[in-house]
Amino acid sequence: MKNIFLATLLFTLPALGQPVISPEVHSDGSVTFRLAAPKATEVWLHCEGGGDSAMQKDDHGVWTSTTPPLQPDIYSYSFYVNGVHLTDPANPAIKYNLLNTDSQVEVPGPKSLPWALNDVPHGVLHHHFYHSAVADDDRDFIVYTPPGYDPTSHRRYPVLYLLHGYSDDTSAWSTAGRANVILDNLIARGQAKPMIIVMPLGYGTMQIVKAGWSRVGDPNLWQHNVEKFGDALLDEVMPQVEKTYRISKDRDSRAIAGLSMGGTESLVVGLTHLDRFAWVGAFSSGGLNTNYVAQFPALDAKANDQIRLLWISCGAQDQLLGSNQQFCDWLKSQGIRFSWTEPQGQHSFRVWRNNLADFAPLLFQGKK
Amino acid sequence: MKNIFLATLLFTLPALGQPVISPEVHSDGSVTFRLAAPKATEVWLHCEGGGDSAMQKDDHGVWTSTTPPLQPDIYSYSFYVNGVHLTDPANPAIKYNLLNTDSQVEVPGPKSLPWALNDVPHGVLHHHFYHSAVADDDRDFIVYTPPGYDPTSHRRYPVLYLLHGYSDDTSAWSTAGRANVILDNLIARGQAKPMIIVMPLGYGTMQIVKAGWSRVGDPNLWQHNVEKFGDALLDEVMPQVEKTYRISKDRDSRAIAGLSMGGTESLVVGLTHLDRFAWVGAFSSGGLNTNYVAQFPALDAKANDQIRLLWISCGAQDQLLGSNQQFCDWLKSQGIRFSWTEPQGQHSFRVWRNNLADFAPLLFQGKK
Repeated sequence: MKNIFLATLLFTLPALGQPVISPEVHSDGSVTFRLAAPKATEVWLHCEGGGDSAMQKDDHGVWTSTTPPLQPDIYSYSFYVNGVHLTDPANPAIKYNLLNTDSQVEVPGPKSLPWALNDVPHGVLHHHFYHSAVADDDRDFIVYTPPGYDPTSHRRYPVLYLLHGYSDDTSAWSTAGRANVILDNLIARGQAKPMIIVMPLGYGTMQIVKAGWSRVGDPNLWQHNVEKFGDALLDEVMPQVEKTYRISKDRDSRAIAGLSMGGTESLVVGLTHLDRFAWVGAFSSGGLNTNYVAQFPALDAKANDQIRLLWISCGAQDQLLGSNQQFCDWLKSQGIRFSWTEPQGQHSFRVWRNNLADFAPLLFQGKK
Repeated sequence: MKNIFLATLLFTLPALGQPVISPEVHSDGSVTFRLAAPKATEVWLHCEGGGDSAMQKDDHGVWTSTTPPLQPDIYSYSFYVNGVHLTDPANPAIKYNLLNTDSQVEVPGPKSLPWALNDVPHGVLHHHFYHSAVADDDRDFIVYTPPGYDPTSHRRYPVLYLLHGYSDDTSAWSTAGRANVILDNLIARGQAKPMIIVMPLGYGTMQIVKAGWSRVGDPNLWQHNVEKFGDALLDEVMPQVEKTYRISKDRDSRAIAGLSMGGTESLVVGLTHLDRFAWVGAFSSGGLNTNYVAQFPALDAKANDQIRLLWISCGAQDQLLGSNQQFCDWLKSQGIRFSWTEPQGQHSFRVWRNNLADFAPLLFQGKK
C-alpha cells in the first residue's frame, strides 16, 4: 500500500529478502534481538534486567545479541545505533513515554502471573477528554470499569485513583502497567473486590515535562506541579467520574495510589485529604518534599483512626530506596501506622505491576 | 528518576546541556527538525508533503533540516540515521503502526479545520477487549460515544463502523485519524448527526500483518483476511456493541466505512450485506479483488433501492487511484449509483481525515 515504506523495508532487509525477526524469545527465556543496520558501525542493546551489551554484525548487516535466560516478565529495551537511541523497528510492542519511548518484550510464564492475559471476563477502558481550568490545557483521563459493570444498575463500586510516574502519560498504567489485565485476573479469582479505577494525567503543569529532565530538579516547579495535580484531581477529575460512573462517594470506598511521582502525589493528596481517602498506596515514590512537617502539617497519630491502609513500597535495588525509608522513619516518629514492602527490583514497571497485584486485593476489605 | 535515561540523554545532548528542540514549527508553517547524533555519518529526513532531505550536522553533533512552509495539517515524518529508520527522540507525538511507527508534527491552522481540538463538548472512547473465536486471538475494539450520550436514557443512536488500513491497529482512527475530534466538531456545529462510531481491529487473521509486507501480496491470504474480518465484525463485534450501547438496529441507521484495506472491507462487507448496512464509504481502497462478479455476486441495479449512500474517494496522487477508478467503472456498468470524490493527496491520513469530515455529515440524513 505505502510504497515509500515498502521501499524502506526492502532497503534495510538482508540479502535474502526475509524480514528481520526481533525479538525472538527462546524456550529457556533467553531473548535474541536483531537490527538490520548495514551502514552502522556500533550498535548497543540496552535491555531491562540484562544490562548493556554490544551487538555483533553478520555478513548481511544484521546486528544480533542474545540475553541469558530471563524470568517471565515484561522487559523494556532499546538499541543505540552510533549513539542514537531507537526502538526496535521489527517490534510493534512499545512502552510509550513522553521523553523516552522504548520497545517491550514479554517472556511468557504461567497463566497465574498477575499480568498474564487470561480467558476471563474483561473490564472496559473509557478514555475521557476535557479542558482543564486548573492547568489551562486539554487533557484526558482513563476509567477502568470492571467486568459486569452496568451503568443502568443501582450497584455502586469503590474507586481507586491510580497515578503514573514522571515522563509517562495517562495511558501508562493501562498499557505498560496492565492495570486492567491485573484487575480482571484478581476479580476473576475472587482476590480483589470489583472496583473502578481512574487513571488521570498525573501533571499539575505540563511545564514539568515539556522542559524534559532539565527542570525536574527545580523544587519550586516540582512542588507547584504536585499541588496543581491535586487541584485537577479533586476539583476536575473526581466530580466528572462521580457524575458519570456508579461510584460510592464515601471515603471508605475511595483509594489513591501511584508510582514514582505518582507515589508522592498519592501521599500528598491522600494524607492531606483523609476526609476523602481512606486507602493510600505509594510505590517507589520520587521527589517527595523532605520538609515533611511542611508537606503534611496536620499529620499525626490521630490519623490512624482514619487511615484504613497506608501501603508503602520500594524496590531493594531502586536508587530511591533510601528516601522512601527516610519518609517511613518520619511516619514512625509521628506514630503513624503503615505497611512496608521491599521487593527485589529497580525503578521499573517490573516492580509496579507486582505492587498493584499485591495492593489491590487489600482494598475495600474488612469493616471499619 | 530513571538515571539510566538521564545519563542517556546527557550523552546525546549538545555541549551546552540544552535539550534538542524538535520539531520546531515556525509562524510561516515551515518546520525545523533536529536530531542529536554526533557519531552518525549520514542522516536523512523523510517528511510527508516535504519529501526526503539530507540533514546537516553542526559543531555540536546536532543534525538539522528545515522544510518549506507547509499547509496547516498533521504530517508524519522520520529520520534515517546511517540507513536506520527512527522516530524523533525529542518528540512524543507518534503515528503508531504495527510495521512502521513514525513521528508526527502538527502545523496549526484555523480552529475551523476538521481535526482542530476545540473547546466543545467531547465524546468518550471506550476500549473493549475480548477473545475472538473467528480469529482465535485476543483483540479489541474502540467505541466513540458522542457528547451527551447517556447509557441510562432511552434515546438510540445511529452507528458508523469505521475501519483502519493495513499495518495500522484498532487505535488508528482515534489517534492519527482524530475521528473523535472530527465528530466532536461536526456535532457541535450541527453538521453531523450525533452517532456512535465503532472502530474494530481490521484483520480477519493476524497472519496478514505478522508476516509483514512480505505476505501482503498473497491473494489467498488477503481474501481470507477480508472474509474472516467480516465474520468477526458481523458475528462478534456487532452483537457486543448492540448489547452494550444504545444503538438503533435498523439498516437505515447503520453505516460502514474505512480506508485502504478498510475501504475494501467496507465495500465487501457492506455491499454483500445490504440487509444490514444502508450507508457505505470507501476511502482509497486497497487490495480489492478485481474479479468483481465473484466478490459481489448479487450486486446489480436493484441495490440502488437499498443503498442510501455509496461514497467512494481516492487521492489524485494516490497510486491506488487507477484501481479505484476501475472499480467505479464496473459499478457504472452495473448501473449502481455512487458518489465519487478525488481530493488532492497521496495514500495518507492527510486525505482520510478530510474524507471522514466530508463523509460523516452525509450519514443518516434525509428520509428514505
